[in-house]
Amino acid sequence: MINVGVAGYGVIGQRLADGVALQGDMNLVGVADLAPTLSVRALKEKGMPYDLYLVEGADKSAFDALDIPVSGTFMDLVSKVDVMLDSSPGGVGAKNKELYEKAGVKAIFQGGEKNSVADVFFHGYANYEKGLGADYLKLTSCNTTGLMRSVDCLDRKYGVDRVAITIIRRVADPGDYHRGLTNALQMDKAPSHQAVDLMNIMPHIEATGILVHTPVTHGHIITVLAHGRNGKITKEQALEAFKEHDRIRVVRIEDGFLGNASLFRYARDLGNPRGDMYEIGLWEDSIVESGDNIMYAINIPQESVTIPETLDGVRACMRMQPDSKSGTAATNKYLGLGKWR
Amino acid sequence: MINVGVAGYGVIGQRLADGVALQGDMNLVGVADLAPTLSVRALKEKGMPYDLYLVEGADKSAFDALDIPVSGTFMDLVSKVDVMLDSSPGGVGAKNKELYEKAGVKAIFQGGEKNSVADVFFHGYANYEKGLGADYLKLTSCNTTGLMRSVDCLDRKYGVDRVAITIIRRVADPGDYHRGLTNALQMDKAPSHQAVDLMNIMPHIEATGILVHTPVTHGHIITVLAHGRNGKITKEQALEAFKEHDRIRVVRIEDGFLGNASLFRYARDLGNPRGDMYEIGLWEDSIVESGDNIMYAINIPQESVTIPETLDGVRACMRMQPDSKSGTAATNKYLGLGKWR
Amino acid sequence: MINVGVAGYGVIGQRLADGVALQGDMNLVGVADLAPTLSVRALKEKGMPYDLYLVEGADKSAFDALDIPVSGTFMDLVSKVDVMLDSSPGGVGAKNKELYEKAGVKAIFQGGEKNSVADVFFHGYANYEKGLGADYLKLTSCNTTGLMRSVDCLDRKYGVDRVAITIIRRVADPGDYHRGLTNALQMDKAPSHQAVDLMNIMPHIEATGILVHTPVTHGHIITVLAHGRNGKITKEQALEAFKEHDRIRVVRIEDGFLGNASLFRYARDLGNPRGDMYEIGLWEDSIVESGDNIMYAINIPQESVTIPETLDGVRACMRMQPDSKSGTAATNKYLGLGKWR
Amino acid sequence: MINVGVAGYGVIGQRLADGVALQGDMNLVGVADLAPTLSVRALKEKGMPYDLYLVEGADKSAFDALDIPVSGTFMDLVSKVDVMLDSSPGGVGAKNKELYEKAGVKAIFQGGEKNSVADVFFHGYANYEKGLGADYLKLTSCNTTGLMRSVDCLDRKYGVDRVAITIIRRVADPGDYHRGLTNALQMDKAPSHQAVDLMNIMPHIEATGILVHTPVTHGHIITVLAHGRNGKITKEQALEAFKEHDRIRVVRIEDGFLGNASLFRYARDLGNPRGDMYEIGLWEDSIVESGDNIMYAINIPQESVTIPETLDGVRACMRMQPDSKSGTAATNKYLGLGKWR
Repeated sequence: MINVGVAGYGVIGQRLADGVALQGDMNLVGVADLAPTLSVRALKEKGMPYDLYLVEGADKSAFDALDIPVSGTFMDLVSKVDVMLDSSPGGVGAKNKELYEKAGVKAIFQGGEKNSVADVFFHGYANYEKGLGADYLKLTSCNTTGLMRSVDCLDRKYGVDRVAITIIRRVADPGDYHRGLTNALQMDKAPSHQAVDLMNIMPHIEATGILVHTPVTHGHIITVLAHGRNGKITKEQALEAFKEHDRIRVVRIEDGFLGNASLFRYARDLGNPRGDMYEIGLWEDSIVESGDNIMYAINIPQESVTIPETLDGVRACMRMQPDSKSGTAATNKYLGLGKWR
Repeated sequence: MINVGVAGYGVIGQRLADGVALQGDMNLVGVADLAPTLSVRALKEKGMPYDLYLVEGADKSAFDALDIPVSGTFMDLVSKVDVMLDSSPGGVGAKNKELYEKAGVKAIFQGGEKNSVADVFFHGYANYEKGLGADYLKLTSCNTTGLMRSVDCLDRKYGVDRVAITIIRRVADPGDYHRGLTNALQMDKAPSHQAVDLMNIMPHIEATGILVHTPVTHGHIITVLAHGRNGKITKEQALEAFKEHDRIRVVRIEDGFLGNASLFRYARDLGNPRGDMYEIGLWEDSIVESGDNIMYAINIPQESVTIPETLDGVRACMRMQPDSKSGTAATNKYLGLGKWR
Repeated sequence: MINVGVAGYGVIGQRLADGVALQGDMNLVGVADLAPTLSVRALKEKGMPYDLYLVEGADKSAFDALDIPVSGTFMDLVSKVDVMLDSSPGGVGAKNKELYEKAGVKAIFQGGEKNSVADVFFHGYANYEKGLGADYLKLTSCNTTGLMRSVDCLDRKYGVDRVAITIIRRVADPGDYHRGLTNALQMDKAPSHQAVDLMNIMPHIEATGILVHTPVTHGHIITVLAHGRNGKITKEQALEAFKEHDRIRVVRIEDGFLGNASLFRYARDLGNPRGDMYEIGLWEDSIVESGDNIMYAINIPQESVTIPETLDGVRACMRMQPDSKSGTAATNKYLGLGKWR
Repeated sequence: MINVGVAGYGVIGQRLADGVALQGDMNLVGVADLAPTLSVRALKEKGMPYDLYLVEGADKSAFDALDIPVSGTFMDLVSKVDVMLDSSPGGVGAKNKELYEKAGVKAIFQGGEKNSVADVFFHGYANYEKGLGADYLKLTSCNTTGLMRSVDCLDRKYGVDRVAITIIRRVADPGDYHRGLTNALQMDKAPSHQAVDLMNIMPHIEATGILVHTPVTHGHIITVLAHGRNGKITKEQALEAFKEHDRIRVVRIEDGFLGNASLFRYARDLGNPRGDMYEIGLWEDSIVESGDNIMYAINIPQESVTIPETLDGVRACMRMQPDSKSGTAATNKYLGLGKWR
């Protein structure tokens, strides 16, 4: 059993903790946070399924006043784990790294940190092997993680050499008030970092892209134009590959999956905790061929999509499985991915 | 054990089924629907925790093609139950009533039907006793249900004789595409039906109100100005009453409950199925006194708020408990309401 | 001719400049700003109808690079005017006041400044006479300005002693990206400052209220419950008073004025510059009586609603007209208000 | 002088009328509509700058009751014109065509009609010559019109043979309540009709695309990936071509044009009637090269973008100018396009 801790019990941290708890070969030692946020209050109301540790600077009396049990300090947590999953606010992870180094534990950072924080910029399918035994991994961001699932899926089977993407980005998570956009589409300077990150991890592909922020909260939509390295990839071929992938859910408009909010609603109706979905959605009705290119649209559930690849990262850095195929398969088994087929 | 069926497995029907399944003294016989909607597909993917029956006009081959098991016809379901919870689309309930009459089963309709469909226009707290033994009840709508919880709570303890409300209404549910509003606030002709409905059920109170639709999906907010029949109700008194109520959750902006989306997020973090909440939220920081009036704001989780009162309706019409106090207490116990305190 | 300058050529400043330019007895000397914002670029593209001065800290070379003519420094502008209309960002006005004092010019500040910046907290209808000859006025905020038009209108004719409001607030202006809200309603701590401000200016009225932010950009909606000091104000009486008011536009849902966005569209279709409207909208179909109270809903076009009252302020502080009636009438004549009847 | 009438005085019809009125060589005879809509009421309040005719089925007494002067019947209008601009609701134009044929007048239909209604599917730049002398033209839709400006611009100068687009579509116009979307991105079945329409008019280009609806009202954003027929088109080359185009406005994020709402605000600040803009916006910061492709993003002001090309259509079908260059130049001159440079 690999012992795992989570730093930062926010949108991502809560889901990382849940994901670790589902892995039969990992043990969630606890989670750490700074203040009695809504997430921490919910943890308390649920009866403390996870032990809570306090990071430096936390005011323990605020937790005591709410009868929230505290299991120790951040270093207490770090000292008990093999690997920390760090989902602290952007920039804090880099500071935490010094503590991890001191304690001699490995760590996996989320996309908000700079690439330089880690030895390997990691994706469970695209470069699992690079992460084997590494001390510090950084996960790709939510959009890049989902995008690369689909591109790697086509690339592995048919070969891809060029990709152009348009990211229709959700601007906030449900419950966010500190950021938002009202009746506006906002441009980002091109190329989008997701295209650049894809080339970083898959250097044999030339990629570019444009990102536009939109005032919604339930998942990004990305359109992908992919050029077949060995000639055109047909819609039939693409569908076959996508349907075999355990982290891609092929859906159809005609079945009622009208957009990003349908996938959110479906995940709620499935009874998934928080209405989360680990899979990206991929619309069968969006796939079109044009020349040697194939174009399609995917949905990225931003709150939960990086959880599986982060767990892959634990497997890689702890050498729990030797390659992408076996590593991702273990994660998928414990998360129940692919069993809907 | 009272046998219960659900007609219409949509936004409300799913939640009614879940609610019945939690009641230790009720048995959910099954649910009925017309087509393999997303909700029905999710039921299938979850392994059919509830038996599915098909209403007249359903194309069984469409269900067969998806390997969705069907347990019989709508009349098969009706013949096995004591009471039907009808959450069919507006107007269909009235037609279904003929079938219920033929089969001699009781039924409880949701707010979308006309009042004339039922013998009693029902609210678990405000007029439970009127529903005792009745054959056909109609529940108040989501806004009225939540609003009346708070008004009845003050009225019971301190006396209320006048109410003026402003309903800031969510315009769609998460996952809706057939209705929506973009960058606009839409007026309804005054007075709002919710004020009229309140007077219908609580005729000793004079009420009026204005409703404005807003482009959000996570819960209505209602401001309530209430006049004390026996002099001013103070903030302290109001808070005391609200905090004792099992279906009212008193929250504070300063704790992070910034608006309707915070309550949705909190319910997701609690692990509640679908991120639902049965309680209305009531902001402590919104309560203000002015003259003999007290003013406060509540949050109505439109998808799930009527479930407890519908279950109260089963208890009343089946004479499972003799009065509001014992009836609502039984519902609350099985739903786990009030235990967060 | 009274010479007027405008500090801050943003959302409000542009409209103040346009409003002054329409007054037959005022002369717009110029406007001042810090950087070549979109508004300043538009001024240039329009051919510089107004002279531009640069506030301290401005980089003149940035304006030169865009061939934007500059007429002088902020103090150059101040030295040429009788009164400055200060619509600088919140807090800057207080600093500017020192310059105004040094130059011996009067100034009118917008709602973003603290009350202490001014000698009189001013509203053209409700307390014009207090502003007579004053050196420093502060205008009420957009919501308070529009709200007080309607309350003063009823109060003057029939007497009002209690008011309770619910403000359904737009969260951003069209074109804003620095603030916004996505799929959420956000609570403010009660009572809202608008209710408090109303009592400040109309101390014979007891007021309270709750404000909720909504994700729209085209105008606030406020519901008002007003209690008649001398008995009930009927719908008929209220309508009569509202229809006589030059800054209130009575509209009806049945005519197509469905909400705040209809009024914005109508103002665009009228050909009003920027699609602005100086009048508040008041829905005839929203007026309802209840007990001794009357309730109604108004629309506040936040970008332009304070312009007339600011011009009233110029008239008061410069003693151009001796009282509210003649002062507001002069402003209305030059702005063309009331002529739609 | 060419005599022109407008059928349907709604969002598009109002702008067509304004556009015709600006052309020095056209005479606007009048506009026709069915009911006293908000647009017609605004026409009245403005003092009837355009004569109003009533289409069949209109209730004249409704106009009389509002003192709206009526100049005659639809056929009265048709009998006085050389060409009708038909912006009736979708489908009505096809019926009107019979009247136009009877009267022997030409007509230009908007994008809502079926292609079969017209002899030529028309775009002022891309196929002006096809429209010469034709009796019935149909304009491309708003998105296609703007998209083709940019593609034709590159194609004319450098050659383009493949295009892939992602349309981030606004779902409603400001003031719409009959359609809308709340917190959702909605997929359309691929390929988008705009890509198909482009191939229809520019058959030497292979095009595909995906369209996603977003909950905003101020202009679509389209990303375009274009492949150079004669090798890569560089960013420098593309910019040079775009900056020369009178109906393309090149803007930059760093100058404050952050998204679609910035362009709307800028047009308002310019004092353009209704805050309209005839030009598409094109973000310089969005242009990126990748392989032999160039990618860029444009903004489509949906309410007004088709006006210039419709006026081009009048010029073509009436043979006012012999070719695209002279026809579009005449339209641009009268609309003042290009003079901002």
